[in-house]
This record gives sequence, C-alpha cells and structure tokens, in this order.
Amino acid sequence: MISVVILGAGNLATHLFKAFHKASEISVKQWFNRSLKPLEPYKNLTETTDDITSLKAADIYILAVSDDAIAGVSSKLPTGNQLVLHTSGSVSIHDLDKSYKRGVFYPLQTFSKNASMDFANVPICIETIDKKDLPVLKELAAAIGSKTYKVNSDQRRALHLAAVYVNNFTNQLFRVAHEITESQSVEFDILKPLILETAKKVQELSPYSVQTGPAKRNDKKTINKHLKLLDNEHHKAIYELLTSSIKKTHGR
Amino acid sequence: MISVVILGAGNLATHLFKAFHKASEISVKQWFNRSLKPLEPYKNLTETTDDITSLKAADIYILAVSDDAIAGVSSKLPTGNQLVLHTSGSVSIHDLDKSYKRGVFYPLQTFSKNASMDFANVPICIETIDKKDLPVLKELAAAIGSKTYKVNSDQRRALHLAAVYVNNFTNQLFRVAHEITESQSVEFDILKPLILETAKKVQELSPYSVQTGPAKRNDKKTINKHLKLLDNEHHKAIYELLTSSIKKTHGR
Repeated sequence: MISVVILGAGNLATHLFKAFHKASEISVKQWFNRSLKPLEPYKNLTETTDDITSLKAADIYILAVSDDAIAGVSSKLPTGNQLVLHTSGSVSIHDLDKSYKRGVFYPLQTFSKNASMDFANVPICIETIDKKDLPVLKELAAAIGSKTYKVNSDQRRALHLAAVYVNNFTNQLFRVAHEITESQSVEFDILKPLILETAKKVQELSPYSVQTGPAKRNDKKTINKHLKLLDNEHHKAIYELLTSSIKKTHGR
Repeated sequence: MISVVILGAGNLATHLFKAFHKASEISVKQWFNRSLKPLEPYKNLTETTDDITSLKAADIYILAVSDDAIAGVSSKLPTGNQLVLHTSGSVSIHDLDKSYKRGVFYPLQTFSKNASMDFANVPICIETIDKKDLPVLKELAAAIGSKTYKVNSDQRRALHLAAVYVNNFTNQLFRVAHEITESQSVEFDILKPLILETAKKVQELSPYSVQTGPAKRNDKKTINKHLKLLDNEHHKAIYELLTSSIKKTHGR
C-alpha cells in the first residue's frame, strides 16, 4: 500500500485524486489546498486541509500545483522521510527543496475539467534524484493503470514543448478550419472523422510516412487555388509556413 | 440495385470499389483504367477494361481520377443516360462534360493504400446539377454506410482547404514534434495518447472551447522557455506564428 498526500486542487490534482482514490494499492491520506472550497465535494472521501504545517506523514507528497508555486510549496513541507514529487513538464527536479527525497511524476496528457480520464491513456514521465526511489514511482503509476517512461529533465522539457505542437497548435489548426468552414456556412462536423483518422494514423506509422496532400506532392496548382481562396491574412500565413515546412521535410 | 462503373485505379478508386463490391444494393458493372495492371487483383470480382470506348451502360459512372484528368476523361465517355460523378474536393462540377447528368461525390477522408476503411467514418459531400439526381447519390452513400452532406461548390472548396489544415498541416505538427523528441532521444510514442485525445476532444466540443496552454493563458514565462529551447529556426517560426494565432483567437 502506498500512502499519498496530494497538494493542489486544479484539474490535474483532481484527476489524480480520483484515480488514486479508486486504486486499491493507494491510500490518499490527505488532500491539501490553500483554499478548502474546491476540495468540498471530496471531504467525505479523504481528509482535507488548508494548513500546510499539519500535513500527515505519507510515503509520497505529490505537488499538483502551478509551476510557479512548486519551489515555494516544497520549501514549506514538514520534515519527514516522504518522497516529494512535482508533476510539471517544464520545471526542474532541482526546484524541489533539497531536504527531501525528490522526484517528478509528469502525466503527459490533456485533462478536461468535467470529462473523466482513463489513466491507461496517460503516459507518466518519471525522474528521481536517487534511483532507489524509481520503483515506488513505477508502482504508483501502475496502480492507476499508467505506463511509465524514465526521462531526464532535458527530455521532459522537450516532451513538454513537443506537446504544445501536438495539442495546442494542432487544436488551433482545428480552430482555423472551423473558421474556414463557418465562413462558407458549412458544418465543421464534416471534418471530424478526418481529424480522428489523422490522429489514428500516427499511432502506428510515422508522421513522415503518412503525409499526403498538395505540399508533399508540390502540387503548385492546388496550392495556388488554396492561397487564392484564403482572404484571411492570418490563415494564409499559416498555410504558407506549414506548406513550406512540409516541402522542406519531404525535400521539395 | 444501383449499377456503377468506376473509372481510375488510385487509392480512392480502390477503396470505393471494395466498399461498392461489398454493398448488396450496388453492382459494380465494370472498372476502367488506362492501364489494366493495378486492376489485376480484382479481375475476378468485376469486369475490367482499359478501353474507354467500350464502357457498359450503368446508372452511375464514378470518376476517381486525378483532378487534372476529370475534364478529359468525362469528355470521352460513351453517350448514355448515366449520371457522371467526380470525386474531387477542388474541381468544379462544371468541369464535367455537359452531355451528361452530372454530380459530385466527394468523400472527405484520408485513405491509406493498405489499411481498409470503414465508410461509416467517411462523410460524403454531394452536389448535382439537377436536384432530381440527389436521391440516387444519397442511396449510393447509404449503401456503403456513409453519411451525406449536400454542399455547393464553394462550400466543397472550403472543406477541401480546411481539410489541408486538419490533415496535412496537423500531421506536419506531429512531424515537428517527432523531430523535437528525437533530438533528445526520447520516444515519440509518449506523445501518441495526447495526439489521440486532442482529436477526440473536438468531436464533442469546439476547438475554441477546449484550447489550453501557454499561448491561451498568455504565459510569457513558459513561452520564452520554449523559444529558448528551440534551436531549429524552422520549428521556432511555427511556434511563433501559432502562438500569435492562438493569442489572436483568444483576445490576448
């Protein structure tokens, strides 16, 4: 049985609490947040507190707080033998206070406030100062059904950056597509199966090998047709940059 | 029973043949291609020909040929009462020869050479010169399990353009992410669940409403960290443009 104290009450903290609470091998001893309000709905499931000086002893303290708060919160933790983990993609493991055993437990996924998340679909990037602490991180992840990947801080930062491309930037391309379809009063719904298929294709094959389209073929006629259709300068800039990017990748 | 002649032997033609062949309400009378070679594997399933002057009578001739070939092929068809359809997203319905009943049957999806495609996941955009011809197009699509959307030529062109953003450009972002992870010798696999979840999210909610990340929050600290990490000028240009695009969309 792994005993855990969760710190923070955001999206990730809440998803972690739910997953930990369900796992038979994990006991959530306590849940801390500066304000008790967001913890209200869970107060019958675990002990909640807003007093950081009264944290219970546990195997693991997991900090699911904002990046900027990690160093500050970790310096205020009561002394003890616990392993202190942060959950951020871009913060160094060395931001954690030196008095503790330290590690990182970074779930690489996008969490929605209301939708539940199956942690089988959440890869967890783990890192520890002392490699003796790795097994318990693996157990913690396994208990909620997640796969773990041992990555160092540079690799984690690269993943965090790459995640912006495949999540935020990709989603912005969907937004631009939405604007384009709306401008012609046509349903964005028509594009949804293509969006899903595009994501499914790269589950098995590399993005390089599945690329198609006018830029890959260097089909100037279609590219020029498209550029003529684009009256939004902003959409056009994205079209031009990504077309040149594809050409570069495929040696056109 | 709808009788069909297929023209062309590319990816789409082959997927359409397989779907039509399986559908009990459709009979593929003949399959034409300039060269018989790609039709070899199917010659026991339907009549194949490379002689456009000897096409059989059928309810529908479906042109799954390259955009540039549509006008030429349609002008060489034998006279008859068939409905002639092209399958392109960017070619006008008026490129088809005027002597025939004309329509467009544009499947908005990405097809792989080897993977099979369930046409339930392929929305078909339909258009006809004469609205009396619409019902048979709907029947044809329904017979292979596809949903139809009636769109005019301008709308179809907008969809074709938007499809480049959600398919080719999105896939290129996956490629950039692949390059970033490779540069730190970390597995691209770790990003795959996030890629899938990003596509799933917009199946139910708008891309606008699900956006997250440093650009949306105008989190300059993280943005600057990311820009510093990017040593590839090309990756950096994409980061900057899409960050400014997200800021614009979300009024930052």
